Order: sequence, then C-alpha cells, then structure tokens
Amino acid sequence: MQNKRLILKSRPAGEPVAGNWEILTGDVPAPGEGEVLIRVLYISIDPAMRGWMNEGKSYIRPVELGQTMRALGVGEVLSSGDERFKAGDFVAGTTGVQEYALLNAKDLQKINPERVPLPVYLGTLGMSGMTAYFGLLKTGQPQAGETVVVSGAAGAVGSVAGQIAKIKGCRVVGIAGGDDKCRYVTETLGFDACVDYRKGELRKQLKEACPDGVDVFFDNVGGEILDTVLTLINRKARIVICGAISQYNQTKPEGPRNYMSLLVNRARMEGIVVFDNAAEYPVAAREMTGWIAEGRLNTTSYIETGGVEAFHDTLMKLFSGANTGKMVLKMVP
Amino acid sequence: MQNKRLILKSRPAGEPVAGNWEILTGDVPAPGEGEVLIRVLYISIDPAMRGWMNEGKSYIRPVELGQTMRALGVGEVLSSGDERFKAGDFVAGTTGVQEYALLNAKDLQKINPERVPLPVYLGTLGMSGMTAYFGLLKTGQPQAGETVVVSGAAGAVGSVAGQIAKIKGCRVVGIAGGDDKCRYVTETLGFDACVDYRKGELRKQLKEACPDGVDVFFDNVGGEILDTVLTLINRKARIVICGAISQYNQTKPEGPRNYMSLLVNRARMEGIVVFDNAAEYPVAAREMTGWIAEGRLNTTSYIETGGVEAFHDTLMKLFSGANTGKMVLKMVP
Repeated sequence: MQNKRLILKSRPAGEPVAGNWEILTGDVPAPGEGEVLIRVLYISIDPAMRGWMNEGKSYIRPVELGQTMRALGVGEVLSSGDERFKAGDFVAGTTGVQEYALLNAKDLQKINPERVPLPVYLGTLGMSGMTAYFGLLKTGQPQAGETVVVSGAAGAVGSVAGQIAKIKGCRVVGIAGGDDKCRYVTETLGFDACVDYRKGELRKQLKEACPDGVDVFFDNVGGEILDTVLTLINRKARIVICGAISQYNQTKPEGPRNYMSLLVNRARMEGIVVFDNAAEYPVAAREMTGWIAEGRLNTTSYIETGGVEAFHDTLMKLFSGANTGKMVLKMVP
Repeated sequence: MQNKRLILKSRPAGEPVAGNWEILTGDVPAPGEGEVLIRVLYISIDPAMRGWMNEGKSYIRPVELGQTMRALGVGEVLSSGDERFKAGDFVAGTTGVQEYALLNAKDLQKINPERVPLPVYLGTLGMSGMTAYFGLLKTGQPQAGETVVVSGAAGAVGSVAGQIAKIKGCRVVGIAGGDDKCRYVTETLGFDACVDYRKGELRKQLKEACPDGVDVFFDNVGGEILDTVLTLINRKARIVICGAISQYNQTKPEGPRNYMSLLVNRARMEGIVVFDNAAEYPVAAREMTGWIAEGRLNTTSYIETGGVEAFHDTLMKLFSGANTGKMVLKMVP
C-alpha cells in the first residue's frame, strides 16, 4: 500500500504557484505503540495555510521545506497501536495533505459521522467554527440589539460568526463578493443584510445596511474593507482581527489607514488565535451541536474533489473566493 | 481694556500655515451672572489642536471658522459674577487662544499655584497628565516586571506615562528624537532606556532595549514607530493609541502595515480619549500630586513666550518636536 503526500518544495513570494509543491509516494508504515494509521477522507482548506508556507515566527511553526504540508483532516482508522482507537473509528486531527497519516493517538479526536456529516467536523465543529465561536463571543462580546458586521460572510468562519451573532440577538450584516454569495448569506444563513463589495460604493452600501453604526466587526479580510468599516464604528466598538485574506498574497501588505478611528471612538482592535481556547472546545462543540440540531446553525460544506493532486488548485480557489461555506478537499475517489 | 484673540480663518490641508489664523481685537466684556472674567496667563499647546482645526466628526466638535481657537489655559480671575470665584483666584479652563476669557463659572476649576507652578496644571495635573494616567493604567494595564515602551517619551503625555510605568515597577523604554531628549528621558525622567529614532535602525535599537519584548506600547506618534514596535510585541500585548503626531499633518495618513501582529500575538490596540475619565480626574490628581511631592514624578514645563502673536510658531515648534516636557505658551509679558 502506497501513500501519496504533498511536500512544500519552495516558499512562495506573493501568490503560491504549482511549483512550490511536489508529490512524493512511499510505503504506508504500520502503526507502532501509541500510534494510529488513518485513511484520510477530507482535509480542511484554510486561508491560514498561506501563512504556514512563510518562514519566520508566527502563531504556529512554519511548514519546513521538504515536510508534508500541514492540514487538518478527518479520516477512518485502518489500524491502531493504541487501545483508545480501533479500525473503523472516525477521527479528526492534523493529518497533513496526504492519503494516509500515521499519528499519535493523543493528537486524535474521535468523531461521529452519524451526528453530522464528516466535513462539518472540519467546518462548524472544527477550527473554523471554534474560531468564530470564541472570536465573536469572547473578543467581540456582542450584546443583543447591537450591530455586528462580518467580512468573508459566506466563508467558513464568517458564516458561523454571523449566525452566532444572530442567535445572540444582534443585527447582523455580512460583506461578501457577488450576488450568489450575498443571497446565500441572507437567505440560507439568515443575516439581516449582506453587502456586495464587488458592486463598489462599499461605504455607502454599508452605511445603509448599518443605520445605527457598527458595534462589532469580525474581520476575515482586511485591506479596504477593514478601512471602510473603521469609518463607521460606534463608540467602544470591538474589531476582531480573525484574518486578512486580502493581504496574504501581497508582498507589501497594507495597514488600516483609518486606525485613528479607534481613538476617536475609544474602540479596540484585537487579534485572536483559536488554539488559546483549546480547553473550552468541548463546551463550544456541545453548544453548536445543539444549535445545529435545532436548525439554527447552517453547516454548508463546499466539497472539492481530486485528492493530493488537486490541492494547489483548491487552495487558489479559496483565495479567489469560489466557496460558499466551508471548503474541504475530498481525499478519496 | 482690549482683548486680543486668535480666530481660525481657514482650515489647513496638511501643515497649518500662518494664513489659517487671524488676530482680532475687541472690548473686554464685564461678567454677567454666573460668569467669570479671566486674565489668561498660560495656554496649553497640544498635538490635538491640529485635529480641532479639521472639519468633521471627531471626539470633540471642530473649531468653527471665525471662532476663537480652542485651548486649555490657566489664568487669574479679574472679576466674577459667581460666588464661587473672586478676583485674584487662579483657575483652569478652556480659555481659548486669547488674552482675556469670559467663561461660565461651572466650567472652571480652582487651582493653587503654591502647590505646583501654574503650567503644571496644564501638564502633569492637566489633560496631558490625565491622558497618561488613565491611558496607561486603565487601557495599558501594565504589570510589575513587564516592558513598557512609550513613544513621544520626552513629550507632555509620554513623559508622564513612562514615569507612572516606572512607579508601577515596569521596565520602561522611551522613544524620542535626538540625544538631548534621550538624555532627558533617562536622566531626568528615569526611564531605563531611550531609543533615538533619528539615529536609524529603530528596530535593532528597540530590540536591544527590550530583550524581553514589549508588553505595553503607549503610542503618541504612529507611522513607522508604531509599525516597528508591532514587530516586537509579546503575546497579549496592549497598544494604547493615544495619538499619532507623525500623521496629523499628512494629507494621506498611513496605517500600521504590521497590524496582523495583533493576531499572531493575540494582542490588542485600543484608542483612548481622556474625557471619558472626567469623573475620576480628582483621584488621579490626588495620586499624582502625591508622587510630585515625593519627588517621584518630574513635571518639566517647556515655556514659550509671546502670547497670541506667537501661537502659530509655537504650535509648529510642537510638531517639529522642539519641546522636552509640557509645552505651554505664556500669554502675558
């Protein structure tokens, strides 16, 4: 049995190119004690992956050249050297971009595909959902009746953040690119409004959608969108810096020119990293599973196929904004 | 008796010019009931004045064209239509840039020039000191042993913020322009180190001065200095946005390119406006008066002379960074 895996061959400057990757094949090893061998079924495709390709200090170690590209994934246990797992179990973990993963049992989490579909363990019940849950509730601290704006509203994190804000009684306005996405955001996800940044006049559109100003901004995009929202924030507004997908492929990133609006409005801008909340993941998962069961939290997955060979194109699709909902790559035919 | 006052004739684009102002003279009115007539002795020269000259929403109304330029000042009561004040009393209030001010008694505060020199009521015990006190302690929340960096360290607000951080047991590093200022910051104010941004290699200098990274950054300057400190912050760092003097005269301000460091480090950047703490000014004044009496809080004033006619040049001196300590303009010969 052969494993196919994707390694990082070189670091991109700006946008990643196909030549940054190389596919290697090799034998699938048998698990030693405490190890578990997994057939990878889906991997999560995340904007953060772009950051992992860079050298240098960040919130997580970079992927080293020659290493298998990091990815969160879900799969089925094929054989196990640990009593907590047996063949046929479904698990989630940091599988990497490969067909088979040999992982330490302690780094795996058992999941139940009868409760929600497997990709949802990478989306709403995975890092995306956890990021939305803790970023919005702990850092954004939305109060009922406040206006919450979410950029990347049709994406994996934004879609969850906005829906949770609705559950908490806020007026929720999304920002997304294109008619289809905006319709998805209002009709499927139930946001109060969605602004299409591709239509131009972003400030005017947002101002109309937020007649009482902006109390919480959950930002996944950065750039012009962040700058525009800064001109509309209310006093004591909270800006949650979750990501800046507009900047990840820029060689010279832009800062928010209007950051002095923080002073005028005694507002704060705060960065979040989901891992800090690891001890509380189970609490969040329990609450969100309840909302899913009640039909209050939509969990759309956007499934690409093609396995290891399709990884690069799928990642680029993410950056071009192709997906509505959580983008995952199916690793089996 | 004639009053000479400075009015805002036109709004500047970029740097203010002498032609933005006009000096008018007129009779000095007698105080009506509840009013107090003051001979203005010193006015406070503040970076914030540049913002007050702009049109549009900010944390305070702009000065209207044709109005006397706003300024905080201290003076002596000449005659009073309110029982709380009598001729010979010393007071602080929003006098404006003029020789005589007719103000409502309720907007005045009695001060005692025997306790500290009059200009100190505009500096350490005025808005500058209050801004430093509340901005540092409430928003920066420095803990003993942490590293606090202060930009504009030789200025009115920075000098107080850094000294309070020292009193609280922090390692305090200033950023200032020029040898003389840096010597003042370390020798007179007692900061642990001071980095001269005019020497270049700001990041290298700062890194050496902050071997344990930066936990709190109290920023009065913005621009490149903010961007550089962002690369050196620790986890959960707090950046207090007090001002951005490097940007006030820019027609196209720059945002902090490295703001994603907030995410990597789960840090926050928060704006402050001193007025929000008005109810607690007396508490701060009491505590700081104690530190002054104990010799723990230096209160240098940088006194310019020349009254109304000298206002424009004095303001421009502030922006060129001439002052060490609180800049005030003496309004009497």
